[in-house]
Amino acid sequence: MKDTIKKVPGLAVVLVGQRRDSQTYVRNKIKACEEVGIRSLMAELSEECAEDEVLNAVSEFNQDPSVHGVLVQLPLPQHMDEDTILGAVSLQKDVDGFHPLNMGNLALRGREPLFIPCAAKACIELLLRSGIKLKGKNVAVIGRSNVVGLPTTLLLQRHHATVSVVHAFTNNPEDVTRVADIVISAAGVPNLVRGSWLKRGAIVIDVGTNPIEDPSLEHGYYLRGDVCYEEALQVASAITPVPGGVGPVTVAMLLSNTLDSAKRFYGIS
Amino acid sequence: MKDTIKKVPGLAVVLVGQRRDSQTYVRNKIKACEEVGIRSLMAELSEECAEDEVLNAVSEFNQDPSVHGVLVQLPLPQHMDEDTILGAVSLQKDVDGFHPLNMGNLALRGREPLFIPCAAKACIELLLRSGIKLKGKNVAVIGRSNVVGLPTTLLLQRHHATVSVVHAFTNNPEDVTRVADIVISAAGVPNLVRGSWLKRGAIVIDVGTNPIEDPSLEHGYYLRGDVCYEEALQVASAITPVPGGVGPVTVAMLLSNTLDSAKRFYGIS
Repeated sequence: MKDTIKKVPGLAVVLVGQRRDSQTYVRNKIKACEEVGIRSLMAELSEECAEDEVLNAVSEFNQDPSVHGVLVQLPLPQHMDEDTILGAVSLQKDVDGFHPLNMGNLALRGREPLFIPCAAKACIELLLRSGIKLKGKNVAVIGRSNVVGLPTTLLLQRHHATVSVVHAFTNNPEDVTRVADIVISAAGVPNLVRGSWLKRGAIVIDVGTNPIEDPSLEHGYYLRGDVCYEEALQVASAITPVPGGVGPVTVAMLLSNTLDSAKRFYGIS
Repeated sequence: MKDTIKKVPGLAVVLVGQRRDSQTYVRNKIKACEEVGIRSLMAELSEECAEDEVLNAVSEFNQDPSVHGVLVQLPLPQHMDEDTILGAVSLQKDVDGFHPLNMGNLALRGREPLFIPCAAKACIELLLRSGIKLKGKNVAVIGRSNVVGLPTTLLLQRHHATVSVVHAFTNNPEDVTRVADIVISAAGVPNLVRGSWLKRGAIVIDVGTNPIEDPSLEHGYYLRGDVCYEEALQVASAITPVPGGVGPVTVAMLLSNTLDSAKRFYGIS
């Protein structure tokens, strides 16, 4: 793109507050942009700023023709309305794919969303690139968040998997996971999925990234997935680690969505 | 409403073509409107009309302040783009709830759709009014159509059920239905669900309305559900019949959505 039309894709990130994990995620995304030649912009706002300031930042990026993706790092401070702010991101630049119209188009057969949410896209990409066919496969998705569980479920159904969604109110979740060919966990509960929850030979995708405090470490914590990795290794035929599994692929999908958006904007395929 | 503000809710129906089943459905809806005091309007267009004519009819009803619900009877003739036409219905009058933005709001936690699609709402209403709690219940939904299966799944998840979606590519669907506390079938395949597919005591909602040809009958056909009713009766603790089960409740939900829309329009609660 840089060679042919002398333009590069642009990704703008809005970061509100000083959460360490959010700062790390944003840094990783910006670093990834640099590596592949995507221009990155950032608006950093204080924890105490007004909702309007965030909306203004989003609005400026919406109007900037050099920006093709606008991302609001979640979670936002409690005094802000997440729906309002996410709803303000231009549909054409919603590279996270969280806009309700985009989610509706992901859910409805025969329609195409402009963007597939990055974590969901990462899970399915990992499976497909590993040569795993999804059609007719029995998949248990643990967690039904707007950010991961829901779009992953909808995307799996597009690939004709048979999906069961397990959540906090599910009785005996292990009964559901134990018959699944593929288990995708995005519950945010460390070590939730034990070896005994899995069918022998199951494929496990662990989207959980749960910080566990450990004062002896430099950063004061380490990351654990939702899956008890050591136990699952004994039963599963394949499993993604945490960290280093779904996380980096999710960032790659964000870059891919940004590139797609820029191509769409400049009318190149 | 008629007594207090001297207004009545209005429902407009767009019917294209001469399909006998569509004509019957529309007639039932209009009759139901009359029974409860909702004013009904209808635009009848020929099978051969241009897509623009349908769009014009929708647009006129969108602009008519005495109309609070606009409904396009499906299926449309093959030469028309269903997405375009359904997408043209004003969000505020989309009493069928098929607009992708509405569906996205139904899917996303923390958001509220303006309208819940009528068949989905009917299934859940039947369960709740029968005193059946959905939280934590294991529910198998058979079929994933935009009109029934998808919104039913999304609505069940709002009620904290654990949902598995079975469809044409599911291997051994009976393995999924046999562990379900509640089975909702909207597959459009007569007698698909056999007694052996059900757990003893399961609750069965049959959304299928499949016409079976029978020249000896006055109309030339009779209606069959997706469920083998006689077999299911031996196993299930409760089951809805076809006809006379979900169908009339779905029409009632359409009236309810139209009334809600009119209340919203006139600002009364």
